[in-house]
Amino acid sequence: RLSFPLSEHQHLRYNPLRGSWVLVSAHRMKRPWKGQMEKPPEEDIPRHDPTNPLCPGSRRANGEINPNYESTFLFDNDFPALQPDAPDPGAADHPLFQTRAARGVCKVMCFHPWSDITLPLMQVSEIKTVIDKWAELIEELGPKYPWVQIFENKGAMMGCSNPHPHCQVWASSFLPNEPHLADLNQKMHWSSRGEVMLVEYARQEAERKVRVVLENDSWLVVVPFWATWPFQTLLLPRRHVLRLPDLTSQERDALASVMKRLLTKYDNLFEISFPYSMGWHGAPTGPHLKEDMSHWQLHAHYYPPLLRSASVRKFMVGYEMLALEQRDLTPEQVCHTSGRRDLDTDT
Amino acid sequence: RLSFPLSEHQHLRYNPLRGSWVLVSAHRMKRPWKGQMEKPPEEDIPRHDPTNPLCPGSRRANGEINPNYESTFLFDNDFPALQPDAPDPGAADHPLFQTRAARGVCKVMCFHPWSDITLPLMQVSEIKTVIDKWAELIEELGPKYPWVQIFENKGAMMGCSNPHPHCQVWASSFLPNEPHLADLNQKMHWSSRGEVMLVEYARQEAERKVRVVLENDSWLVVVPFWATWPFQTLLLPRRHVLRLPDLTSQERDALASVMKRLLTKYDNLFEISFPYSMGWHGAPTGPHLKEDMSHWQLHAHYYPPLLRSASVRKFMVGYEMLALEQRDLTPEQVCHTSGRRDLDTDT
Ligand SMILES: O=P(O)(O)O[C@H]1O[C@H](CO)[C@@H](O)[C@H](O)[C@H]1O
Ligand SMILES: O=P(O)(O)O[C@H]1O[C@H](CO)[C@@H](O)[C@H](O)[C@H]1O
Repeated sequence: RLSFPLSEHQHLRYNPLRGSWVLVSAHRMKRPWKGQMEKPPEEDIPRHDPTNPLCPGSRRANGEINPNYESTFLFDNDFPALQPDAPDPGAADHPLFQTRAARGVCKVMCFHPWSDITLPLMQVSEIKTVIDKWAELIEELGPKYPWVQIFENKGAMMGCSNPHPHCQVWASSFLPNEPHLADLNQKMHWSSRGEVMLVEYARQEAERKVRVVLENDSWLVVVPFWATWPFQTLLLPRRHVLRLPDLTSQERDALASVMKRLLTKYDNLFEISFPYSMGWHGAPTGPHLKEDMSHWQLHAHYYPPLLRSASVRKFMVGYEMLALEQRDLTPEQVCHTSGRRDLDTDT
Repeated sequence: RLSFPLSEHQHLRYNPLRGSWVLVSAHRMKRPWKGQMEKPPEEDIPRHDPTNPLCPGSRRANGEINPNYESTFLFDNDFPALQPDAPDPGAADHPLFQTRAARGVCKVMCFHPWSDITLPLMQVSEIKTVIDKWAELIEELGPKYPWVQIFENKGAMMGCSNPHPHCQVWASSFLPNEPHLADLNQKMHWSSRGEVMLVEYARQEAERKVRVVLENDSWLVVVPFWATWPFQTLLLPRRHVLRLPDLTSQERDALASVMKRLLTKYDNLFEISFPYSMGWHGAPTGPHLKEDMSHWQLHAHYYPPLLRSASVRKFMVGYEMLALEQRDLTPEQVCHTSGRRDLDTDT
């Protein structure tokens, strides 16, 4: 293995959570970029904008007035992709035209009353409140729905249409593709090796050290060996934990602190409020609450779109959509990057 | 089935090529958009730019001078993601850290000597030449590589970094994820139903008529029942055809004509040069050339990013990356759309 410098030669890496491969072609970072340049994130966001439907005291699309909230604030998405009462499309008339019922709820949670703040700028105690609310949401919606997806789209580049700091929660009557794959693959690992995949993985990464971004007593942040997005990270508890509500108060404090450190590191990388999509994957709920789900380990994925500066993103397009995901630098190289200068390999 | 208006209620649809599901939530088009606005494509591209490395007579990154080509022009990508001689990373030391060798070649093919032209603006006979070159590429690279991915990223929005009309060809020593899934699922359909999946599908769509965009004697273009991108299409031969080189000269003429019509329709939709990523999937090559691949049907996928105007795109972000792909209007609605006015459901 020593004779193969992973950062010099292209190769494939296996993603054991998805059961798929990613093409790692290190030398592509030398390619000059003449394509689309991204606009930097807006900088003069007003702290309070009475016309923004996410602000305290504002009127939303359904006519309701938001309370003058002082911490987090949860409400039903006014344009939900999932509603509780959609009818069942019934049996398919042909195997190539299969449909299934989809029911659920979509909620929005504001993190803070101010529009000009983001998670890394909030106090650790305020982040802890967000974590407590996330855990409550799993407890509230979990009994009814097999999957409760908590996610944050941050930045216009990630399709976020409102600068006010918020996340979304979409709970569904079905197990979506990604958690379905994660369930399958964790189960296979558990039965073949008698170990929880991501507990074993965290231990390995803590020993190998080359992909560790941050750690504390309870949490580990790594650029996963199989990362597809340039600065993708995986946030893992060190202990075996199935779901967010299972975290102790101490573990939540440690999580708030590691989140603040990770997101500050992201912001510092290119000296902008760093865009990303992130979300939590814990053991499925609903009927699965009564099953043995020991093969699962709680984790969060961070998927940031940027490649080598605030204005050059990675496009997952032609080859990636039609064949397989491809990255232009190795996960190990990313771990040794502290800012834009390190990435300018071509200048 | 009549009692369930598919365009009114959210539901899941099954993608039989990938074996995955997509969430269709029709009513989301009513959502107002306050997020990122896309820049319209550049309009004043010079016909000939001596500093553009793709133009006839230009110098490329490797120092070579392009010939004064008058039709198509093929050359090796100067920043290849795949190279023929990458070493084998060897056996993994742990099941969670698996690598595989990746070898291949990356080529670029210019469609035309002019920079200010696109496929839909080219003559049918010129498009036919492109098709002939594609077929030749499969014949040339196929014997050596199990997969030859021909794809076009069109428009800055799709990560294209050069406005000169061109496509790429990445041939690899491995079968990538997407064709691997297509192979598996077509094989399963073939053994369970004794019919070629996409031949059966084309026949069904031609009868049902609700998702047909264009057709002629040899080809059919549909918005597939399981489309994830708003204006995604699937281009299919009516006859059972394994690979591009198997097309008769008449079928290539018909393909050139249907491509011109499809791409013109796309350009007219929002009155801009329509961005997309497209690519061909035919039966795998290399060692598979000697196997029975009758379960395969040649097809092309078109994945355009726009949602409801030249400046509002669909973001596949948080929920889509972490859970499952979601679309905001039904494939049937798209088929009855002839332009921007039809899509303004919210005004
Ligand atoms: O090779 P290009 O056109 O420079 O690059 C483009 O297409 C590639 C293949 O889909 C992607 O990996 C790149 O992210 C994209 O910018
Ligand atoms: O719900 P939002 O923030 O308006 O919309 C955003 O997130 C959704 C969930 O990932 C996506 O489906 C949309 O394409 C994106 O623009």
